[in-house]
Amino acid sequence: MLDFKRLENLSLQCRGDILKMTHVANSGHPGGSMSSIDILVTLYSFANVDSKDPWKENRDRIIISHGHISPGVYSTLAAYGFVDRDEVISGFRHPASIFEGHITRGIPGVEWTTGNLGQGLSAGVGMALAGKLKNSSYHVYVVMSDGESAKGQVAEARRTARKYNLDNLTVIIDYNDIQISGHAKDIMYVDLKSEYESAGWKVIEIDGHDHKQIYSALNIAKNDGAPTVIIAHTIIGKGVSFMEDKPDYHGKPLNAEELEKALKELGIENDTRKYIEIREKLPIKEHENVKKSYKVSINTGKYRIYNDKTDNRSALGRAIADLAVINDNVVAIDCDLKGSVKLNYLDKERPDRLIEIGVQEHNAATLAGALSVEDFVTFFADFGVFGVDETFNQHRLNAINNTNLKVVVTHCGIDVGEDGKTHHGLNYLSAPTAWFGFKVIVPADPNQTDRAVRYVAKEYGNFVIAMGRSKMEPIKKEDGSLFFDGNYSFTYGKMDVIRDGKEVAIFTMGSVVPHALNAVEELRKEGVDVALINVSCPLELDEEILTRYGREKILVVEDHNTFNGLGKLIAAKLFEMKVLPDKFQKIGLDHFPVSGSYKYLFKIYGLDSEGIKKAVKRLLED
Amino acid sequence: MLDFKRLENLSLQCRGDILKMTHVANSGHPGGSMSSIDILVTLYSFANVDSKDPWKENRDRIIISHGHISPGVYSTLAAYGFVDRDEVISGFRHPASIFEGHITRGIPGVEWTTGNLGQGLSAGVGMALAGKLKNSSYHVYVVMSDGESAKGQVAEARRTARKYNLDNLTVIIDYNDIQISGHAKDIMYVDLKSEYESAGWKVIEIDGHDHKQIYSALNIAKNDGAPTVIIAHTIIGKGVSFMEDKPDYHGKPLNAEELEKALKELGIENDTRKYIEIREKLPIKEHENVKKSYKVSINTGKYRIYNDKTDNRSALGRAIADLAVINDNVVAIDCDLKGSVKLNYLDKERPDRLIEIGVQEHNAATLAGALSVEDFVTFFADFGVFGVDETFNQHRLNAINNTNLKVVVTHCGIDVGEDGKTHHGLNYLSAPTAWFGFKVIVPADPNQTDRAVRYVAKEYGNFVIAMGRSKMEPIKKEDGSLFFDGNYSFTYGKMDVIRDGKEVAIFTMGSVVPHALNAVEELRKEGVDVALINVSCPLELDEEILTRYGREKILVVEDHNTFNGLGKLIAAKLFEMKVLPDKFQKIGLDHFPVSGSYKYLFKIYGLDSEGIKKAVKRLLED
Repeated sequence: MLDFKRLENLSLQCRGDILKMTHVANSGHPGGSMSSIDILVTLYSFANVDSKDPWKENRDRIIISHGHISPGVYSTLAAYGFVDRDEVISGFRHPASIFEGHITRGIPGVEWTTGNLGQGLSAGVGMALAGKLKNSSYHVYVVMSDGESAKGQVAEARRTARKYNLDNLTVIIDYNDIQISGHAKDIMYVDLKSEYESAGWKVIEIDGHDHKQIYSALNIAKNDGAPTVIIAHTIIGKGVSFMEDKPDYHGKPLNAEELEKALKELGIENDTRKYIEIREKLPIKEHENVKKSYKVSINTGKYRIYNDKTDNRSALGRAIADLAVINDNVVAIDCDLKGSVKLNYLDKERPDRLIEIGVQEHNAATLAGALSVEDFVTFFADFGVFGVDETFNQHRLNAINNTNLKVVVTHCGIDVGEDGKTHHGLNYLSAPTAWFGFKVIVPADPNQTDRAVRYVAKEYGNFVIAMGRSKMEPIKKEDGSLFFDGNYSFTYGKMDVIRDGKEVAIFTMGSVVPHALNAVEELRKEGVDVALINVSCPLELDEEILTRYGREKILVVEDHNTFNGLGKLIAAKLFEMKVLPDKFQKIGLDHFPVSGSYKYLFKIYGLDSEGIKKAVKRLLED
Repeated sequence: MLDFKRLENLSLQCRGDILKMTHVANSGHPGGSMSSIDILVTLYSFANVDSKDPWKENRDRIIISHGHISPGVYSTLAAYGFVDRDEVISGFRHPASIFEGHITRGIPGVEWTTGNLGQGLSAGVGMALAGKLKNSSYHVYVVMSDGESAKGQVAEARRTARKYNLDNLTVIIDYNDIQISGHAKDIMYVDLKSEYESAGWKVIEIDGHDHKQIYSALNIAKNDGAPTVIIAHTIIGKGVSFMEDKPDYHGKPLNAEELEKALKELGIENDTRKYIEIREKLPIKEHENVKKSYKVSINTGKYRIYNDKTDNRSALGRAIADLAVINDNVVAIDCDLKGSVKLNYLDKERPDRLIEIGVQEHNAATLAGALSVEDFVTFFADFGVFGVDETFNQHRLNAINNTNLKVVVTHCGIDVGEDGKTHHGLNYLSAPTAWFGFKVIVPADPNQTDRAVRYVAKEYGNFVIAMGRSKMEPIKKEDGSLFFDGNYSFTYGKMDVIRDGKEVAIFTMGSVVPHALNAVEELRKEGVDVALINVSCPLELDEEILTRYGREKILVVEDHNTFNGLGKLIAAKLFEMKVLPDKFQKIGLDHFPVSGSYKYLFKIYGLDSEGIKKAVKRLLED
């Protein structure tokens, strides 16, 4: 049994710390921190977490989804010795302090960086799934706010928890009924109890300021054999009379006078002067990085060789299945497209490693990120438009969390064909530039795809591997043997000179490569000497190759948006290298394309060998 | 009373047309088209729509959310004379035909381009809201699939319909229980009835192949004074014995033999040879554009002049309120941030024109796009990370729909300060390059903000106006008068030469401008002659100014991601203009920033006047 008196005392201390640190920083969210604090203090006491060994493997995972209540979280972590209390109160929201405005994964006791609302439950579902897959006994707790419960991603995560019977997952909602603009029920009514029940969850309602009720609910939830939500009725600003139930204090710290009054009411000494003095001495610089990662242990197996025409998707699917057969720590996430993204190979070999999330991409992307930090090499497979465009901000948050996610997207570009503009994913190079740290690989054929998949599996970090839909001939050398043969190994950032040549250099990638190769070979027969360079890593351009070919006539061909694609990247890179080519032209998409067979579309937009030949000739003409 | 025999005959004809057009195209989705067809045929007969006058103002709006059932929609439109039947069957999914893979707004009878699942209901909510705001009597119908009901955005839209009592909205769900990967209930169970009831909707369940039941349900739903969902139980592939309840036919057309068999079973003549012949003669080119727009009628009012320090947000909020006071067709969408994005001004003047969606950004973005095509100049106000990054694919779909949306995002860049990396929106230039047709404006001060808001209000089309958070001095000329004064009018694509100079040219935008101006003035006192150019339209770079300053030493400073921001855009542009500057340097963010006051962050990342001065001096040094 817990010592409830101690919990009360700690909660009181935390309330004081919340008010102090937000006052010292002159910034932050005291209101919600004070409504959540009794939950947090009870939870960190109840859960299997240990400040002496904060990252022990079987620890319970605690995710705080409404990351703006960082003052509440930091004060709790300080109360239990995870972090230093003076550092928290003096450093909160200062650049030199790790205690940022929103909680950050890597701080002892913090499992997931949050701040953009509505993503925390998906992360919790991912960690709970990981626990099941690892046969680990840990429990996952997600604390969230009522306001963020309106986010659609929460509904997606809820259904996923039910589908996978995640009885190792408990949600606690701080139901203070206050959002920034006023009472939650006036802004956008969410019937929490009814919505969770509809999704098949167990629901417990309690007073969120009563430690005994919180403890008892946590105990029931942990052992009831189902995903359970605890709806904890709370009061924003709880503990200080003039702050209670006031939306104003959502994001506004107390001024000196208010602080004095509040601390007096709480019976806590006002020692903020001391913290202000420490803060004033902090240097104006970036704090040390708290990025967390792990050493990936994986057997990448024996590569596959493709001699015949096939699609990169199949090479992708087979490589993932190969990896999963010989490693237990490989998992893939599908959004009702397993036949198209070729996870059917995995489904056949290791159905236990295929997680089917249905048409719930936001949830799938976050959940995949969370699985990937739980020692799983995680493939999130989807069409380009869904795996990149639809899930843009989820991957941005994954990047912030320094996950180990492999976003493998098929059906990129107009190579998709008949499905048309809604399905033509044209931003697979540009979107990841927004996700600092993400690397992008666009393989040229099935052999390079196979090698790229095995490469990303062993490298910790976030990758996008982007490919088209149609079948293609494996790229061959001039002697007819495979270009990416048994001796080839993938190196990130290396361009492949598929054909050397002097008059024009074609830079291209992905599904355009075979078309460009045809064009180059036909042009040779006509006596035109053209180089063909495959840019499989467009975000890390190979300066050696650019220096070698950069002053010639250059043609960039891409099945991508030209406003933010390969041509733009090469142009900016050559400019910064102070290399001006004789001529420079780019071919790609500069408006939403129409729908049609990919052969027709390649012809219309100039990406087929005829179009490329014409463009080369135009460059040579005038 | 409807002629049900006629509906049956039309449905039969449509079933044949669905099978024919997908066979002729060798592509498309027959299965879902056949499960939806009785619903579609009944709905287009029941609703107030007229093929003779397809865009009449008071027409009922019909949105088909699962846009891949285009064969069902096109065959229905052909059956009622909206479009030519032969053109549909022969042209389906051919580049020269307007009948693309997914249905397209602008085709008579099609109100909204769909294809990416789960967005249709939000569009319907937007149009229903528009009807209420316009006091128009039209009814809005949204037909959707059960599979897409798992998307979180649907839950968001559902709550919004209840909040605004949209009794002019009816949803019909084609509940065939089949998704691409199998039975919906196995992939991701959604308890449709319970979820809609939890959100306060009325629910009717019917047999979705019984025209009388469909008619009767539509009649009840239209008149029951609440948003209502009709759950129509259907069978995929309905009508052809070997297709029924088979997931295979979700996205696979029949081959010649199957088609012959199927048409025989339906008692329909197999005349596909004729359509194949017509198709073979179609040219391989893009079809004519069916983009729909309207003439914007608006009084942009009298500009406001700001002489004193204030934030661009307040200028934004005041301008929107000004416009709404003198125009009835101005509306703004808020996501629980009205005090921060300064829609509180609008709330005070025209509360009836402020739509509060809460923390449901995906729904808000689509709903805003739909409102904007209903003759409302629509402002979607949000923080940069939510209004741009979180809603990336919603705006891409808005762009495809050629909406008239003004995305006004505040709190962009590290100017946000203490909220930290989750809240630093650093992609407000790059993300819109993915949304073909979107224009971007980054105003330099409150006066330019005021003029930019009035400018976008009168121009049909999609815009992003991006700004920071902090207060800034209005930009002044050398004589101390306002730079953007009463004589200034905003011109898209024009750079502003704030200070002329010969040694170095600084290109910058937004919240950095005042800091750069300070730097320039201090440098002048030290005898260094620096030009300062404000790039308020970074996606449309001013070639005249770039030619004038392009060969000097250039410094680009941006509160934006440098991998895809202003520096990159200017570099690529100068490269394509074949202009190489003497030196070129860019300052901005190349990793996730820390949290801290914006003054500290500007200092750390070199965006403050000290940092800019140092960078200028370094350019001059070596």
